[in-house]
Amino acid sequence: MQFADRLNNIETSAIRELFKLLGKPGIISFAGGFPDSALFDVEGVRAASLRALSETPGAALQYGATEGYQPLREQLAAFMTGKGARDLAAENLIVTTGSQQALDLLGKTLISPGDKVIVEGPTFLASIQCFRLYGAELISAPIDGDGVRTDALERLIAEHRPKFVYLIPTFGNPSGALLSLERRRQVLEMAVRHETLIVEDDPYGDLYFGADPPPPSLLNLSAGVPASRALLAHCGSLSKVLAPGLRVGWMVAPAELLDKASMCKQFSDAHTSTYAQATAAQYLGSGRMPATLAHVRAVYAERARTMGEALRRELGDAIAFTPPRGGLFMWLRLTGAGGKVTDGSLLAQRALEEGVALVPGAPFFCAQPDKATLRLSFATADGEQIRAGVARLGQAI
Amino acid sequence: MQFADRLNNIETSAIRELFKLLGKPGIISFAGGFPDSALFDVEGVRAASLRALSETPGAALQYGATEGYQPLREQLAAFMTGKGARDLAAENLIVTTGSQQALDLLGKTLISPGDKVIVEGPTFLASIQCFRLYGAELISAPIDGDGVRTDALERLIAEHRPKFVYLIPTFGNPSGALLSLERRRQVLEMAVRHETLIVEDDPYGDLYFGADPPPPSLLNLSAGVPASRALLAHCGSLSKVLAPGLRVGWMVAPAELLDKASMCKQFSDAHTSTYAQATAAQYLGSGRMPATLAHVRAVYAERARTMGEALRRELGDAIAFTPPRGGLFMWLRLTGAGGKVTDGSLLAQRALEEGVALVPGAPFFCAQPDKATLRLSFATADGEQIRAGVARLGQAI
Repeated sequence: MQFADRLNNIETSAIRELFKLLGKPGIISFAGGFPDSALFDVEGVRAASLRALSETPGAALQYGATEGYQPLREQLAAFMTGKGARDLAAENLIVTTGSQQALDLLGKTLISPGDKVIVEGPTFLASIQCFRLYGAELISAPIDGDGVRTDALERLIAEHRPKFVYLIPTFGNPSGALLSLERRRQVLEMAVRHETLIVEDDPYGDLYFGADPPPPSLLNLSAGVPASRALLAHCGSLSKVLAPGLRVGWMVAPAELLDKASMCKQFSDAHTSTYAQATAAQYLGSGRMPATLAHVRAVYAERARTMGEALRRELGDAIAFTPPRGGLFMWLRLTGAGGKVTDGSLLAQRALEEGVALVPGAPFFCAQPDKATLRLSFATADGEQIRAGVARLGQAI
Repeated sequence: MQFADRLNNIETSAIRELFKLLGKPGIISFAGGFPDSALFDVEGVRAASLRALSETPGAALQYGATEGYQPLREQLAAFMTGKGARDLAAENLIVTTGSQQALDLLGKTLISPGDKVIVEGPTFLASIQCFRLYGAELISAPIDGDGVRTDALERLIAEHRPKFVYLIPTFGNPSGALLSLERRRQVLEMAVRHETLIVEDDPYGDLYFGADPPPPSLLNLSAGVPASRALLAHCGSLSKVLAPGLRVGWMVAPAELLDKASMCKQFSDAHTSTYAQATAAQYLGSGRMPATLAHVRAVYAERARTMGEALRRELGDAIAFTPPRGGLFMWLRLTGAGGKVTDGSLLAQRALEEGVALVPGAPFFCAQPDKATLRLSFATADGEQIRAGVARLGQAI
């Protein structure tokens, strides 16, 4: 069978290798990117579904508008407004089948083969592949502990004139990094200066640790940077905070882009499951979300603390990392101190032999991979497993 | 904002015009393509969801495999086997977000810009647009009352060497036509002779009227035509028989194609809602489907009979049509008898002024539109509305 040329643009062996790591029995896994299913508010989802089926059975099970189920669009606009977004009404967002579909629609709507897209190095693996399937040439912008380096980013924008810049400013996957407030403003200002679209992917922003939320999202900040809102697409998701299985994400974007993305979505899947959307709308309307968020924040914060302490204790100066202030991920760099291993793939291999799974960082770079990096998720293991797993990692190193 | 070049390939004003017709108050609508939400087995879906959440809450709400939720793949394989498919196991199909996504994945996986695809004239509007977004050049194969004309189809295959041939052999949208058994065999034989992939879109096959099912699907027949199964993709859906809002469809295809389609799906939406999939799996496992199918078949059969009788009574020789043996649609051709109107768009406009909505047939053709055609759905209006609506149509003509 002769497949489409676009399939030549992507290389999925790295992903397959990652996933092969996950299945072995007896393994403690820090390799996944999933939230902990034990934290799902099953009772809340059950009640929400029952209300959707009793109050609006026809709408919950019938075909729906491609742009999304109107009561959910309204709930999402209120949810975002409650977190500080300005001038955000239902018609300023569309519902997507997970935020992965928002990325796919951005690719379908915007990328012609050969167009350039700037992403962080490292960034979300599925974004790299998604954009490449549409023929994008990806450019890697370096990050540090405060997120993307804006000086380098602006030079890359000026040089490459990208179709858009894709960022995960808040607790990004895989870096866990948090873009500083100052750099957030700079990103919006350079968007205006260069007339360049910024895509803010924000699935983790609600998962902050401690009492203080992170700096405002680019969306929220755009109210203070004239003309920047018209150059911003913001992708949100219920996957990390409520349940991935609903596949409910959304995208806030300028009207013209939303219109084209809706048209493309019509031919991608007609619309997102109205049953899942009606359930999500009832859930958001039930008032349970704040308690759910508080609960998952507290659990992930404790696990992140436990992992950080164990890593310092067991691995000492063989690694360097910035303790994450939220999200699901810890990003390590092997220092080579004392002649220890500096190759992340090699360490991941050895760790697996010791009974702990983590993923090497190199595949998360679209170019110039930093091979001394590793991603660990602290989301799905409890404190005891985290300590035992990190001890095994200590053995491996 | 500069959008991707692929958006220049499609023209959606026809669709928008169609949908504008649907919203006016007081209108009797034969214009939609929806099943009747009053027929949904809401109690069965509710029970299925509750079982999914109590028996497998983690799996129902967590991320899942891109290929589909394994218990649903098994239920779907059993469902298809029960309808006569041979050698069909869970691993021979993937779950898609409605069968619309199966079409999208076929486009993404197979079509390079400039590739040719043969479709029926007329065919499903969203398939035309979906394939064109990937750069397909569409070729129109003529149909008659027995479905696609296989003599013409074989000449077109030989001439154009298409990437694939897309057919809705059973109660197609918009034609309602049923491909004869003899022609089904011929299609499979020409697939082998020309080594051409056939895509069988089959959302309506379960909706037959009366006691006798239609001829076997191409999938079922392929067991008797050596080498044809390796050249066949079959798309199924629960949308027309259970509930569109679940967005549960599936695709049976050769392993190599399923593998590439799964890879593409990973970057389209990661996976179909596991909540919807777990609900569908429980529903199929509950044993309620046969009674649900019998009920919807009986209701749609009665509505089709009522509409057919009313059309003959009210419009007489001004129209010609083949009474459908299943599905949701009636396809009319204006004969011009007695000097009456022969332009479907003009009649649709006049009908709307009389208070009945139907859609002109021309937009359903990718080329050489037959402007004397119209599509009516009998699915969502009851007997009284059907008689009243057709009487209004009689006034309009």
